[in-house]
Amino acid sequence: MSSSARSAAGFRRLWSDLQDLGRDPGTGGYRRFAWSAEDAALREWFAGAVAARGLDLVVDRNGNQWAWWGDPDAAAAAGRPGVVVGSHLDSVPDGGAFDGPLGVVSALVAVEMLRESGFTPQRPIGVVNMVDEEGARFGVACAGSRLLTGVLHPDRARGLTDADGLSMATAMRSAGQDPSHLGRDSETLARIGAFVELHIEQGRLLADAEKDTPVAVGSDIWPHGRWRFDVPGEANHAGTTRLEDREDAMLGFAAAVIAARRSAKAHGCVATVGKVAVTPGGVNAIPSAVSGWLDARGADADAVRRVVAEVEEVTGEFGGRLAEESWTPTTAFDPSLVRRLATRLGGVPVIGTGAGHDAGIFANAGLRTAMLFVRNPTGVSHSPAEWATEADCAAGIDALHEVLLDLAGGVA
Amino acid sequence: MSSSARSAAGFRRLWSDLQDLGRDPGTGGYRRFAWSAEDAALREWFAGAVAARGLDLVVDRNGNQWAWWGDPDAAAAAGRPGVVVGSHLDSVPDGGAFDGPLGVVSALVAVEMLRESGFTPQRPIGVVNMVDEEGARFGVACAGSRLLTGVLHPDRARGLTDADGLSMATAMRSAGQDPSHLGRDSETLARIGAFVELHIEQGRLLADAEKDTPVAVGSDIWPHGRWRFDVPGEANHAGTTRLEDREDAMLGFAAAVIAARRSAKAHGCVATVGKVAVTPGGVNAIPSAVSGWLDARGADADAVRRVVAEVEEVTGEFGGRLAEESWTPTTAFDPSLVRRLATRLGGVPVIGTGAGHDAGIFANAGLRTAMLFVRNPTGVSHSPAEWATEADCAAGIDALHEVLLDLAGGVA
Repeated sequence: MSSSARSAAGFRRLWSDLQDLGRDPGTGGYRRFAWSAEDAALREWFAGAVAARGLDLVVDRNGNQWAWWGDPDAAAAAGRPGVVVGSHLDSVPDGGAFDGPLGVVSALVAVEMLRESGFTPQRPIGVVNMVDEEGARFGVACAGSRLLTGVLHPDRARGLTDADGLSMATAMRSAGQDPSHLGRDSETLARIGAFVELHIEQGRLLADAEKDTPVAVGSDIWPHGRWRFDVPGEANHAGTTRLEDREDAMLGFAAAVIAARRSAKAHGCVATVGKVAVTPGGVNAIPSAVSGWLDARGADADAVRRVVAEVEEVTGEFGGRLAEESWTPTTAFDPSLVRRLATRLGGVPVIGTGAGHDAGIFANAGLRTAMLFVRNPTGVSHSPAEWATEADCAAGIDALHEVLLDLAGGVA
Repeated sequence: MSSSARSAAGFRRLWSDLQDLGRDPGTGGYRRFAWSAEDAALREWFAGAVAARGLDLVVDRNGNQWAWWGDPDAAAAAGRPGVVVGSHLDSVPDGGAFDGPLGVVSALVAVEMLRESGFTPQRPIGVVNMVDEEGARFGVACAGSRLLTGVLHPDRARGLTDADGLSMATAMRSAGQDPSHLGRDSETLARIGAFVELHIEQGRLLADAEKDTPVAVGSDIWPHGRWRFDVPGEANHAGTTRLEDREDAMLGFAAAVIAARRSAKAHGCVATVGKVAVTPGGVNAIPSAVSGWLDARGADADAVRRVVAEVEEVTGEFGGRLAEESWTPTTAFDPSLVRRLATRLGGVPVIGTGAGHDAGIFANAGLRTAMLFVRNPTGVSHSPAEWATEADCAAGIDALHEVLLDLAGGVA
């Protein structure tokens, strides 16, 4: 059995376990939200899978599940902290099957292959299921890694509420997790010598590449930000106010939407207006105010800034204003680790990504971090159309296996 | 004292009573919703004002308040039904002071002037305060006239609910009005030989006219309708999906908004998109569906249809569809009455309007109906900026006085 056939078989076995878990029969999408009944089932599944592979499960203070091969504390004390692979099992509303679970399943299969091959790691190997990466329920993405690294304050996390007004603290307690110990966890962090997160590609760079390339190494997370633009108008009657007497805030909003797309295209970025609020919002009322939210990202921070400036200019022509709600500069993964992985994998492409990941939180916290991406023929993510062929999933597992051989076998 | 000075003094006295009633101190706008405490205070004020002028108050089965000078039933039986003037006292949320109350106050002052002058009407004269014209609380405009004329079914009316889930039946009961007798009221209708509603102009035709014209006669209510357009998209990640791989429903929506304005301008109509719904509506999610609501009106029904067809075409270019939610053809006021009023008032302009009114409901029910409009320098309505000068309000009262002299004095 070749390596790829072994990984494909291992993948198939584990993957089928997950297909029905948390899936909405109506939309075909997944609704796997942190600290829900579905999440509990997924965590139980993870615990069973790691036990079956002889790994030791540790749940950290923030609810992340770590499965260890070897003693991570002894190794950390000896200056040889572990190599961790994995991702998350939660989803956005009506999300796809791959975003998250592919990384967890691939990690389990890669470790299984190593164990079956008689490999003796020089460092502990960990497989992680990070909790609440999507932030779909409580509104903060990467909550598990943010709490662990101390960038999300435990009081704020405990007080976050879901759509039903239930707090994260209450939800954790219902799921049997004590929320009183949330917060930065140096003990857990000390165990991580390197972290490599495998993820479905959320785009079509690999699908459209001339060369057949099922796997890439991630170099960085693009600079990205969120801006709110407010266009003013004058409340008036939709039936009786002449066009020349109107100040219709919707027109400025529409112009800003079109400007965002045009400018993003011109500057090689992406821009999205996915949320809008209209005042008063009546069918027969000329809008007196329309607010839109702009999400803009790109490989080049200056280009993103130019897109935002052009949207601001158009908004200004309608008397409106634009304000920054958040801005995250480029998050670079560890350059030497990125080079090492790309070389070890035979010169696979090195690509940036526009999405946030736990790996980005870890990189910002100073951990040695990289990512692997698996080709997605649709390019779609956060949707049931998100997809990868079984052969490409197997190629991803082989790559992760190779990375573990390298990082845990030699002096990483 | 000239007629205008008398009407101005009468206006000032009554108008000042109303200024603080139901006014929001924050916005300066009025919040006078049907069957609320504010509405009760307004109804009580009306009852007091008509009693002070020696008129007989009758509240009909649907809650409209009618104040009669003379016996309307005897006159109706004798084939000389009454002449009714008036309007409504309720408002839209944060509405202006004039839309509605100007017609009620003008009617009271005009009748007061007639009585003081020793005039003997040949027909009964009525002053009406129509209930719930704006429909701000229960969502159906002109509820009082629709119930009275039988175009709104009493069961439907009773079951309408406000934002707090309170039904109209419950609200009426709380206000001391029995909702069990709602419905078409032939007895009340038989008393109305002619109805003339004076209203603030909701536009700037008079303000921009070359000749100084404080008052106009209304000819008709423009054809108008409401359409919903749905633009499809593909749910996807705002950060990772390349522009060329996107189907962003917001772009089609923006194009439709711009097309609506452009086309309305080209065809001499008005068009408004005042309401929008985005799915999923997240800042970092490419919209998978955007629905917009188009309100379009104009003097010419074919021109309105052309505007809608052009918006439908643009929506179609983005794979979307447009569907009609409502369509109301031209509502013409009684042509002979319109001519008679315009002539009697010395050749004042005759203008159409884009807004619905109780007068339109009455016209559609076959009653002999017309309207008078008073100049609005801002052109704004449904807003605290709605306005008329005291001199123009007095001119409106003088016009209404003249109309009553004509219609109730001779053989109308």
